[in-house]
Amino acid sequence: MTHDATLPGERFKDDPEAKELEAQKVTLDSLGDWVKTHDCNSLGTGNVGARVRLMGWVDRRRDHGGLIFIDLRDREGVTQVVFDPQADETSHRRAHALRSEYVIAVEGTVRLRPEGMANPRLVTGGIEVLVHELRILNTSRTPPFPIEDDTDANESIRLRYRYLDLRRPSMMRNLKLRHQAAVLTRNYFAQRGFLEVETPILTRSTPEGARDYLVPSRVSPGNFYALPQSPQIFKQLLMVAGFERYMQLVKCFRDEDLRADRQPEFTQLDLEMSFITEEQIYELIEGWIEALFRELAGVSLETPFPRITYAEAVDRYGTDRPDIRYGLELVDVTDIARRSDVRVFQQAVERGGVVKAIRLPEGGRLSRKELDELIEYVKIFGAKGMAWIKLQPDGWQSPIAKFLGDPVREALGQRLQARQGDILFFVADQPGIVHDALGNLRVRLAQQLALMDTSVYKFTWVTQFPLLEWDADEKRFTAVHHPFTAPMEEDLDRLETQPEAVRSRAYDLVLNGTELGGGSIRIHRHDVQQRLFAALGIGAEEAEEKFGFLLEALQYGAPPHGGIAFGFDRLIMLMSGSSSIRDVIAFPKTQKATCLMSGAPSEPDINQLLELCVKIEKAGR
Amino acid sequence: MTHDATLPGERFKDDPEAKELEAQKVTLDSLGDWVKTHDCNSLGTGNVGARVRLMGWVDRRRDHGGLIFIDLRDREGVTQVVFDPQADETSHRRAHALRSEYVIAVEGTVRLRPEGMANPRLVTGGIEVLVHELRILNTSRTPPFPIEDDTDANESIRLRYRYLDLRRPSMMRNLKLRHQAAVLTRNYFAQRGFLEVETPILTRSTPEGARDYLVPSRVSPGNFYALPQSPQIFKQLLMVAGFERYMQLVKCFRDEDLRADRQPEFTQLDLEMSFITEEQIYELIEGWIEALFRELAGVSLETPFPRITYAEAVDRYGTDRPDIRYGLELVDVTDIARRSDVRVFQQAVERGGVVKAIRLPEGGRLSRKELDELIEYVKIFGAKGMAWIKLQPDGWQSPIAKFLGDPVREALGQRLQARQGDILFFVADQPGIVHDALGNLRVRLAQQLALMDTSVYKFTWVTQFPLLEWDADEKRFTAVHHPFTAPMEEDLDRLETQPEAVRSRAYDLVLNGTELGGGSIRIHRHDVQQRLFAALGIGAEEAEEKFGFLLEALQYGAPPHGGIAFGFDRLIMLMSGSSSIRDVIAFPKTQKATCLMSGAPSEPDINQLLELCVKIEKAGR
Repeated sequence: MTHDATLPGERFKDDPEAKELEAQKVTLDSLGDWVKTHDCNSLGTGNVGARVRLMGWVDRRRDHGGLIFIDLRDREGVTQVVFDPQADETSHRRAHALRSEYVIAVEGTVRLRPEGMANPRLVTGGIEVLVHELRILNTSRTPPFPIEDDTDANESIRLRYRYLDLRRPSMMRNLKLRHQAAVLTRNYFAQRGFLEVETPILTRSTPEGARDYLVPSRVSPGNFYALPQSPQIFKQLLMVAGFERYMQLVKCFRDEDLRADRQPEFTQLDLEMSFITEEQIYELIEGWIEALFRELAGVSLETPFPRITYAEAVDRYGTDRPDIRYGLELVDVTDIARRSDVRVFQQAVERGGVVKAIRLPEGGRLSRKELDELIEYVKIFGAKGMAWIKLQPDGWQSPIAKFLGDPVREALGQRLQARQGDILFFVADQPGIVHDALGNLRVRLAQQLALMDTSVYKFTWVTQFPLLEWDADEKRFTAVHHPFTAPMEEDLDRLETQPEAVRSRAYDLVLNGTELGGGSIRIHRHDVQQRLFAALGIGAEEAEEKFGFLLEALQYGAPPHGGIAFGFDRLIMLMSGSSSIRDVIAFPKTQKATCLMSGAPSEPDINQLLELCVKIEKAGR
Repeated sequence: MTHDATLPGERFKDDPEAKELEAQKVTLDSLGDWVKTHDCNSLGTGNVGARVRLMGWVDRRRDHGGLIFIDLRDREGVTQVVFDPQADETSHRRAHALRSEYVIAVEGTVRLRPEGMANPRLVTGGIEVLVHELRILNTSRTPPFPIEDDTDANESIRLRYRYLDLRRPSMMRNLKLRHQAAVLTRNYFAQRGFLEVETPILTRSTPEGARDYLVPSRVSPGNFYALPQSPQIFKQLLMVAGFERYMQLVKCFRDEDLRADRQPEFTQLDLEMSFITEEQIYELIEGWIEALFRELAGVSLETPFPRITYAEAVDRYGTDRPDIRYGLELVDVTDIARRSDVRVFQQAVERGGVVKAIRLPEGGRLSRKELDELIEYVKIFGAKGMAWIKLQPDGWQSPIAKFLGDPVREALGQRLQARQGDILFFVADQPGIVHDALGNLRVRLAQQLALMDTSVYKFTWVTQFPLLEWDADEKRFTAVHHPFTAPMEEDLDRLETQPEAVRSRAYDLVLNGTELGGGSIRIHRHDVQQRLFAALGIGAEEAEEKFGFLLEALQYGAPPHGGIAFGFDRLIMLMSGSSSIRDVIAFPKTQKATCLMSGAPSEPDINQLLELCVKIEKAGR
């Protein structure tokens, strides 16, 4: 259906004042004691003859053969209502005033649509409602963009008029899905003994994270609350308090330089359990995800999800967020490449590096220009170059072909299971660069050549992350996850002697190459926590200052515990097939962290700043 | 049960260092792959012979006849476990080290307690678990207060060690009730078509409310977000967006000077509906409250709840929050009193005031001293005095007796249905003072004489509040609720001519004299909203600046809508019989808005203030 050019509302599109004048001529009615008997997606041929009251928005209007047809829209769908002077002269006369997005209530009788006029695409397409009484509840100016899914309105306009944008069926569907996912999630965990406990929003700044949002205190001037980046310490304290199973769908806050798909405030499913093992957590989460996708997306998932260690993920996929919907795995060919006469291979190996390869089946079709683009692409990730070999019918075509003897060619062919028509890519460098370059190349090739099935959801657990990593700037070890993550027991002895080799009891859940959530078994022993702070170069005094109340709590009967957290916005985005988390948040902020509708943030009242003992000082910049 | 004086843990109570040394001698065990088979409140005589694994905290220890008895406590309850060298020599030996609040896991066999040793007060009182293997998971220092309901620890200590305070069974019960109430609430409304939609926490300051908490923006220096006092405007915009039924359990924030039972952040059940009438809202809420009390408090409530207009509530109870568990209603005796010779009565009437009375049945027993205290009490509320009459066997005893002739006595007696032994109280003044004084006197008498049944829950709706009230300081009308509250249609014509006489479509739900929640039908018409702003003395420019985006939204097809909000903390406090909302919040703040556990608010990092272009300036005070 398209807009009818004779629609009265359209005439005023470019003249809001004339439109308003016209609108003011409409006498508005009260709702009175009318009650909606049905929503606009529920009447069918089984209701023919029923007297009903419907309420909603004028989606479209058509005048035909002396009758006026309105597609009446509410949250649930659309029903056609008909104004016929034979049925009610007054309603028919007043219906001439109706325009798009007017709010009306009608009382009428359900009847079959005439032969050949049924619309099989609509649930209510077999019937229409013949109106006996019309109540016009409100008028509307012409919206700045049409209320339909196919909009070319830019996002700024959509966010500025968010209350209109949310009327579009796809946005309504996203937020309904979000609601349903929240209901299912809460009930799933409640049925399994989890208690939802609300943790504070006005809390204390926690070090070792992203930037906090601060809130000046009026009662103690000069002091500030921080908005929580996560309820991490509070949920651990709830375990010390004996809650055993905690969950919360909770707002978290990070004052980051906003990347494409981050929001200053976001929602997290936060979980923590006592007396728990990794396997129990995996099983619990798999059951939740399985139920979520089955009930709300009609997708059947196989459980248990595969598990892969961090070391193996990096080795085979070049990343700790492997997309396992397709192959293109990284293959280590260091031992073969060192025997070639390729200088860059030899040099890389001499410097302790590795040589890895990806085989792209039938990749021989790539043009020289495409290959050059791929080589430029891997340089973004620090690779100095990338070698390639096309397996053509007339032999190996490659800039390095002449440096590869027959034994090397045979060994490479065998290791990579290469076939005629394939292309092989090689990067030689330090392992970090090789993995980064080939891991990203792998994803790019899959996207460019559409090798991933976008209808498939492949989950995988990544386990046994390193506990610590060396920070070359700060010249000390930092925690890969956070400083409360437990080391694997078998590695505990190496905490002081070989910290970089200690694996943690952390785990991430990855969906199609995107990290959905992550967590860990935590440190519950005071002595181990102290050893970890020492390994991080945090002295006793600093630890006391920063984490004192947690350290103290660990001395009063802290049980073994662990947990996990999921980005709820991103999960709903992936489930709904949206391309941005802004499409699953009712009132999101822009990348500059502003709300285009309300104008937040805004200039404060000067008196309030005085009360807070806070002064704006832009000159300092 | 009381603490056994021979408990080893107790020996070290006053010597934490010795205690710690002792504790360090314990070798801690790993949980390994052990899984809890039962909670500590679930085993009974039906489980005798079962092999079980229990995990929890050492609640109490008793050594008797060569055996060691531990009351093992977890979130659900307590089970007695027994260490017998005959069953497992190692466990028995190591059990000597166990002290209060140590964390352990045991594997053992359920057996009947010996004849005469059953404890009928415990669910698990008929059995005990004979231990075959003990795992000591953590030690504990001696808590600063015992983990039991009867504590005389002051609240500061309890809040400082909140993770221990929360282990007390009553606190655990309160937070479980809170969780269960949230689950029931969300499901109740979800089943009725409500969508839970999350509204922003970082939002724009709204005028006309309490003081906002502010959050400086780093990206736009000099601008601030405000934390929401309620999602009022957002939920109205969701109605404009066509959501029709919205709910949210949501954190709200008010930077108020904290009274006894306020928190800087609190939780609100927030609801909004389109195409709705007051009666539908009442019915919906009554169904929710009825289910809540039936399922979670075992209390059966009669619905519908009584409704009383604001005018009648003030007339009969002197307040808009009437406690209807008892009588002592205010009776207007102005017409009779003016015929007496009591000067203060006559003067009050001449000045346009009223004379009202309360009859306290059998109140004749009150002593002169008690009467003097009551007279002092009503003076707090502005009354210049209070007259009283005791109906004694030998006649009317009263300072004003001689000014009352027989006809007046007879009329008063009849109007007040006075009987021998009663006392009558009279206040004569302007209506506001009379109602305030006698309304408060009524509550005080009921409390002092225990006239209210504390096991009874009496709900009542108060309706038809005034829309506006005169602010003598600002010399203008202000909104009694908020400026989006709809006037009653029949009073709309008086908005410009007699604003103080316009009644609103606001309603409060009152429980036993406490306001639990309130709401209103909102203004959905742009023209009416503009008229209301005008009545409030808010000019077009100011309205645009302050409420522009709402005013604009009302022009794009806003449906008739209304809603309500409930203080969730207070509701749970009343349901759990707690005396403070702090007892139903996991991590509350003190009256000075500080968290004694984490130390929030705290001094910020100077670099972060620089980034925010914010400077602390205490000198300005």
